[in-house]
Amino acid sequence: MPAERSEPIYLHTEEQVAERSFIARQFIETRSRLNTVVNNADNYLVKRFYNIDHNTYLEGAIPAKYKELMGLVVSAGLRCDDCINYHIIQSYRLGASKEEQEESLNVALVVGGSIVIPHLRRAYALLAELYS
Amino acid sequence: MPAERSEPIYLHTEEQVAERSFIARQFIETRSRLNTVVNNADNYLVKRFYNIDHNTYLEGAIPAKYKELMGLVVSAGLRCDDCINYHIIQSYRLGASKEEQEESLNVALVVGGSIVIPHLRRAYALLAELYS
Amino acid sequence: MPAERSEPIYLHTEEQVAERSFIARQFIETRSRLNTVVNNADNYLVKRFYNIDHNTYLEGAIPAKYKELMGLVVSAGLRCDDCINYHIIQSYRLGASKEEQEESLNVALVVGGSIVIPHLRRAYALLAELYS
Amino acid sequence: MPAERSEPIYLHTEEQVAERSFIARQFIETRSRLNTVVNNADNYLVKRFYNIDHNTYLEGAIPAKYKELMGLVVSAGLRCDDCINYHIIQSYRLGASKEEQEESLNVALVVGGSIVIPHLRRAYALLAELYS
Amino acid sequence: MPAERSEPIYLHTEEQVAERSFIARQFIETRSRLNTVVNNADNYLVKRFYNIDHNTYLEGAIPAKYKELMGLVVSAGLRCDDCINYHIIQSYRLGASKEEQEESLNVALVVGGSIVIPHLRRAYALLAELYS
Amino acid sequence: MPAERSEPIYLHTEEQVAERSFIARQFIETRSRLNTVVNNADNYLVKRFYNIDHNTYLEGAIPAKYKELMGLVVSAGLRCDDCINYHIIQSYRLGASKEEQEESLNVALVVGGSIVIPHLRRAYALLAELYS
Repeated sequence: MPAERSEPIYLHTEEQVAERSFIARQFIETRSRLNTVVNNADNYLVKRFYNIDHNTYLEGAIPAKYKELMGLVVSAGLRCDDCINYHIIQSYRLGASKEEQEESLNVALVVGGSIVIPHLRRAYALLAELYS
Repeated sequence: MPAERSEPIYLHTEEQVAERSFIARQFIETRSRLNTVVNNADNYLVKRFYNIDHNTYLEGAIPAKYKELMGLVVSAGLRCDDCINYHIIQSYRLGASKEEQEESLNVALVVGGSIVIPHLRRAYALLAELYS
Repeated sequence: MPAERSEPIYLHTEEQVAERSFIARQFIETRSRLNTVVNNADNYLVKRFYNIDHNTYLEGAIPAKYKELMGLVVSAGLRCDDCINYHIIQSYRLGASKEEQEESLNVALVVGGSIVIPHLRRAYALLAELYS
Repeated sequence: MPAERSEPIYLHTEEQVAERSFIARQFIETRSRLNTVVNNADNYLVKRFYNIDHNTYLEGAIPAKYKELMGLVVSAGLRCDDCINYHIIQSYRLGASKEEQEESLNVALVVGGSIVIPHLRRAYALLAELYS
Repeated sequence: MPAERSEPIYLHTEEQVAERSFIARQFIETRSRLNTVVNNADNYLVKRFYNIDHNTYLEGAIPAKYKELMGLVVSAGLRCDDCINYHIIQSYRLGASKEEQEESLNVALVVGGSIVIPHLRRAYALLAELYS
Repeated sequence: MPAERSEPIYLHTEEQVAERSFIARQFIETRSRLNTVVNNADNYLVKRFYNIDHNTYLEGAIPAKYKELMGLVVSAGLRCDDCINYHIIQSYRLGASKEEQEESLNVALVVGGSIVIPHLRRAYALLAELYS
């Protein structure tokens, strides 16, 4: 792995996010419980995929915050609520402002169309809790 | 905006729909609650997108009823339950018959395949309540 | 099959469409050539699927013209150029006006977002030839 | 229908699956309840589509077990939880091992990307109950 | 429109890009020719959609360069070659480095899976011409 | 990597396939040329993704032939012509019969709907050349 890649520095822990937002807490707990089931299965290729996934969002030529916001845009464009929640939380933890989150969702809305709106509504509910 | 575009005339209010169907009521209430969150954020581009979205389904060369049924077909083809509920309700409010709703869903089923079936089942549950 | 279903009456033959538009001719010829390959394979389930597909767009509670326009909307929403060409041609053959075709594409654009635009451009090129 | 197609022989009934797994029972009951609504509507094209759907997974040149696993792969790739549950259960009923189910999900994960992961997690929860 | 939104400053014109890359030139010319057809149709809602689309990528809380890269990620995730070409070119014009373009494509690859690879290959061919 | 995973044994080389089918040759040559461009970029995460991709289709609990056919089903369901060509060729090289390829495409057709048909037509053209 190139030397310039490094773990990002988070401004908030997952626990702090979970305390701040009911929606985030539900998501984090469910995800954690199900990831335990996946980890117990100990599937070789799944573990390798998770590892690549992790490395994709490290600090690099593009700052980690913008990569998480990119993850948000493509998740909203592909209409995956769990993925949207995940990347909103990660972006929040890396210091993204509410306005940056909204501008990212705007890209997803215009690219993906009105079919994105139900997911946009739920995303705004999470944003309202995180940035209140 | 061309002069020939105008607001459609609804045969039923959203309230009447909500009284008639439990599924519709749940959908309308959740949508209304979350739209309030979105509106409070007062995002310029989101508001403009909502405005275009509204204007797309006005009376025009194609009657509004058929446009809502088109919205139903593409929503089912793209597999968005909230969008399906919305367009079934709008089509009902504009006087679409149960047979017209079913024929629209048939187009979505054939174009979109068996992956549409879980959404078709839920759509039929709403249709059964609205047209009972 | 319910008695009320019947074959639609076309105002133009495929040959007339092919004479009118270069894009349409190319599409019709390629499709015809490849359908021959599929037909030669004589696959039981493919033939049955083609048969359901055909029956979906017959005259019914919804006029065939609007069903073809619905096919156009969902094809554009799902971003399938061949399907878009097919349903534009079918709608044209059933007497749809250019304005009706454009309003259908508007539904697809708003529902499907800017990712639809490259397909919209090609659709407008076909419309320009058919309605010149 | 070609003579060589025949109904597969199931090692387990749906009832046995429902007894073994809470997730499966919930899915089977909801699906059964909603299928009753669809059946009551008695729509000609829906019934024909269901019939083709059934015939697609019969024993043939490819054993039914592998066809159900193919259904699992494409369902996960297209991100349809109900479809994933259905094909995991069918594959289990036809004797697929846990390792075969996981290898199928690996194909879907690599082809479909991290957007598949939320569905993968839920699939593993069902697998854990069925194969415990 | 909020005061802080403004047109980005491009480092290269479309003409310079077209001189630099054969792939870019072909794309720009075809897009320009077809946009003329769309503009000639003078459709009210299409023009409004194009306008929103334009405003989504202006300088704002997120720099325009990152917004174009976000457009690239979601375009690759949704597998739209024309959209990928467009956003690679826009990002290049706004000074994005080759490494930033690649990191953006990595997000799309991991989120969207191997189905993205054919588009990734063509994207790399354009990148090779632009950054040679 | 578990010991039981191993490279599959191919009955035909890519060169033999290219000699047998014009469509296959065009696909293999274009893919090879563009992969060279990707390889030259030497992107760390792309290489790791290609490596996982390769390992997903090895011999395992499920024979490699069926995994390639699964890749075909999900590729057709997700409507990716290059991916369809790739997996048809791989399945052919591993001894899949024409009937097995067709049954796989039937699963994709029923799951993915008529939107798959344009890709099905092109797939049948390749099958006709390979199995003539």
